[in-house]
Amino acid sequence: MKCEVVAVGTELLLGQIVDTNSSWIGEQLAAVGIDSHFQTKVGDNPRRIADALRLALSRSDAVIVSGGLGPTQDDITRDVIAEVMGVELVHDEMVAAKIREMFSSRGREMPANNLRQALVPDGASTMDEQPGTAPGLVCPMVVDGVDKVVYAVPGVPMEMRQMVGGTVMTDLRRRAGDDATIASRVIRTWGNSESGLAEVLADHIDRLDSEGHATLAFLASGVEGLKVRITAKGPDQASVSRLLDAEEAEVRAALGDIVFGVDDDTMESVVLAGLARSGQTLAVAETISGGYMASRLTPAPGSHVLLGAVVATGDAVRQRLYRLAEVEVADSDRGSVAEAAALAEGVRQMFDADVGLATAGLSDTRRPSGEVAVAIATSSGVDTVEWRLPRDHDRVRQFSCIGLLDRVRRTVIAADGR
Amino acid sequence: MKCEVVAVGTELLLGQIVDTNSSWIGEQLAAVGIDSHFQTKVGDNPRRIADALRLALSRSDAVIVSGGLGPTQDDITRDVIAEVMGVELVHDEMVAAKIREMFSSRGREMPANNLRQALVPDGASTMDEQPGTAPGLVCPMVVDGVDKVVYAVPGVPMEMRQMVGGTVMTDLRRRAGDDATIASRVIRTWGNSESGLAEVLADHIDRLDSEGHATLAFLASGVEGLKVRITAKGPDQASVSRLLDAEEAEVRAALGDIVFGVDDDTMESVVLAGLARSGQTLAVAETISGGYMASRLTPAPGSHVLLGAVVATGDAVRQRLYRLAEVEVADSDRGSVAEAAALAEGVRQMFDADVGLATAGLSDTRRPSGEVAVAIATSSGVDTVEWRLPRDHDRVRQFSCIGLLDRVRRTVIAADGR
Repeated sequence: MKCEVVAVGTELLLGQIVDTNSSWIGEQLAAVGIDSHFQTKVGDNPRRIADALRLALSRSDAVIVSGGLGPTQDDITRDVIAEVMGVELVHDEMVAAKIREMFSSRGREMPANNLRQALVPDGASTMDEQPGTAPGLVCPMVVDGVDKVVYAVPGVPMEMRQMVGGTVMTDLRRRAGDDATIASRVIRTWGNSESGLAEVLADHIDRLDSEGHATLAFLASGVEGLKVRITAKGPDQASVSRLLDAEEAEVRAALGDIVFGVDDDTMESVVLAGLARSGQTLAVAETISGGYMASRLTPAPGSHVLLGAVVATGDAVRQRLYRLAEVEVADSDRGSVAEAAALAEGVRQMFDADVGLATAGLSDTRRPSGEVAVAIATSSGVDTVEWRLPRDHDRVRQFSCIGLLDRVRRTVIAADGR
Repeated sequence: MKCEVVAVGTELLLGQIVDTNSSWIGEQLAAVGIDSHFQTKVGDNPRRIADALRLALSRSDAVIVSGGLGPTQDDITRDVIAEVMGVELVHDEMVAAKIREMFSSRGREMPANNLRQALVPDGASTMDEQPGTAPGLVCPMVVDGVDKVVYAVPGVPMEMRQMVGGTVMTDLRRRAGDDATIASRVIRTWGNSESGLAEVLADHIDRLDSEGHATLAFLASGVEGLKVRITAKGPDQASVSRLLDAEEAEVRAALGDIVFGVDDDTMESVVLAGLARSGQTLAVAETISGGYMASRLTPAPGSHVLLGAVVATGDAVRQRLYRLAEVEVADSDRGSVAEAAALAEGVRQMFDADVGLATAGLSDTRRPSGEVAVAIATSSGVDTVEWRLPRDHDRVRQFSCIGLLDRVRRTVIAADGR
């Protein structure tokens, strides 16, 4: 089964919007084993959209086309599909009623333009999911004697995702003769490279390949860590869940403590939840990360354990934190583990918290040196470590913060034994 | 002149990486008036890459292909181009020497693999820009009796941008017979919508269209504001600079004080520079924005005026700031302008700064209410304002911070008269 993706919109070609839809669709197709060999972007031009659809249909069994389903004259995807199918557009009163109701529920009159969205190629059906005014279309057609299909979905990512995740994937898998239940789980790790993980799991992956009921894929995700996605297939939900549980246990056993979470867990939520479980509170002092750590912790679930954070850019506030820690930090120690330790203990005292964290480092002419010191202060003392990172603001803040939180997870929270 | 873009890489189709290269290239082509009607993503498969190149060459005068120039067996773009040109790959000793030197300058031996990168299709030339080990290739060829060209650039965005911004654009414009000098300037605004700006500038745009030596384009850029890009064309650099200056003056006159900067200016850098000019220092207290404001200010040029920031998530630190401001804030005033005012004045006192800023707001079950209060405290008093924003963490932090900085620009800095 092969499925191509065509993204419609002149704004995509002009670079005014990055086409993230195709990538997301590609990920969904890959997860269920459907090949996608080409993805095309094309502008709002009827002849070129038709050319792109015909070419895609000549190479693949199915085409997902996103965009061009809006109410304006520029939105011509439905017209072009009707042309490619060799049929007329017909008015669908159920769709029209749905659109009219969306407007009236907001106390607004439906503009006449929006009736264009109730036009459907003769022989096509609409999708049940319809979060906006644009209906998704399932357009079956015979190409050179072979049954093929075009799915048309809106370009608005939220609407596209509902339709592709629902009707499109179900219909595609049915067409592929795949009536198995399929589900995924993501194991999140920090502290090993993609090739490192692949090596550790190599035998396991070989065995999965020969058995054929589950697959592993690695997704490098920068500061979010390296994800291992388990995808399992079975006759029903219960058997798939059992497979995922068994696989998760095996992956965890193989990878050890570099696994920090599953699915929606983040390093922040895991650390905050760990501290909450043992009733510990947190305070943060940041120099080189300049507020980045606080900005990641505050929206995360469990952030009530964070009593506060100080971005210690000025001399006075740093001196104050040193005094609270009852240590002296020489000018020559700026950016070192000595400073990080003083800041972590100082901010712990300032907020009367159980755990104090700090990042320290130097930068010249607005560029970080890349040498970063971090510290974890608790009532039993201060743990420090130094890292050498790329001389880049984003990398320095991201890696020092997540690295420091990972160290909290491995030390403070692991020691708590829960 | 038509130029297509082909992005090579199975990881792009699988959605492991979003193809931002094509969008960036599309933006560059649009800026100089070169049409790009199709952009294609294709995997690391020789037959399919060849099909994509041949199709693109049949429709367009030039093709920019990114990716697949690395040293491994998967990297086959150069092989496929040679096949499409109908020529052999030849060893380029100058490229080999350059790669060898890159390794030796880092004290490393060049792996034999990397010699693959010194293979160049016979008749192609390499690009002067070569920040990494992969050389960019200019591959002229005759297709159906017409002179066409394929440019091959690496998929690494930084390397791709140097080559496309340099050799590729120069060569494309020469081929298009366009020997004019072209340059752009971006006017950055905050506080009006795209349609609002378009309306204000409508007559001006009509006049530019009829004169033909400059164009305006709007780029909605979320929290970075709405950009107005002026592109001007002329016989030489001096005349283009004069055109840009004249256009900038007209746009500024039409838009008034919603213009906050030009080109690389950001709201942060403009506000920090304004405070630095008048010798004023800054302190920040954040509740609802949770460190986001500090994390934007700290890496910006001029951040030495920021004496420090407090993320006031816990009760104790908030009470302390209220006491420093010498005001009482009732529990029922949490998240209101009364709290924002107390936090702004409190943090100004805490850091002994000239200007204190604060964001305040409430959230339930980790979702912000969307009602945000911000305040600016100076020695002459406290200025506050309330906004109603979408109930979304990112939007609330982004818009409250940039909105507050914009208000500092319009009040504190404008009052300073410089």
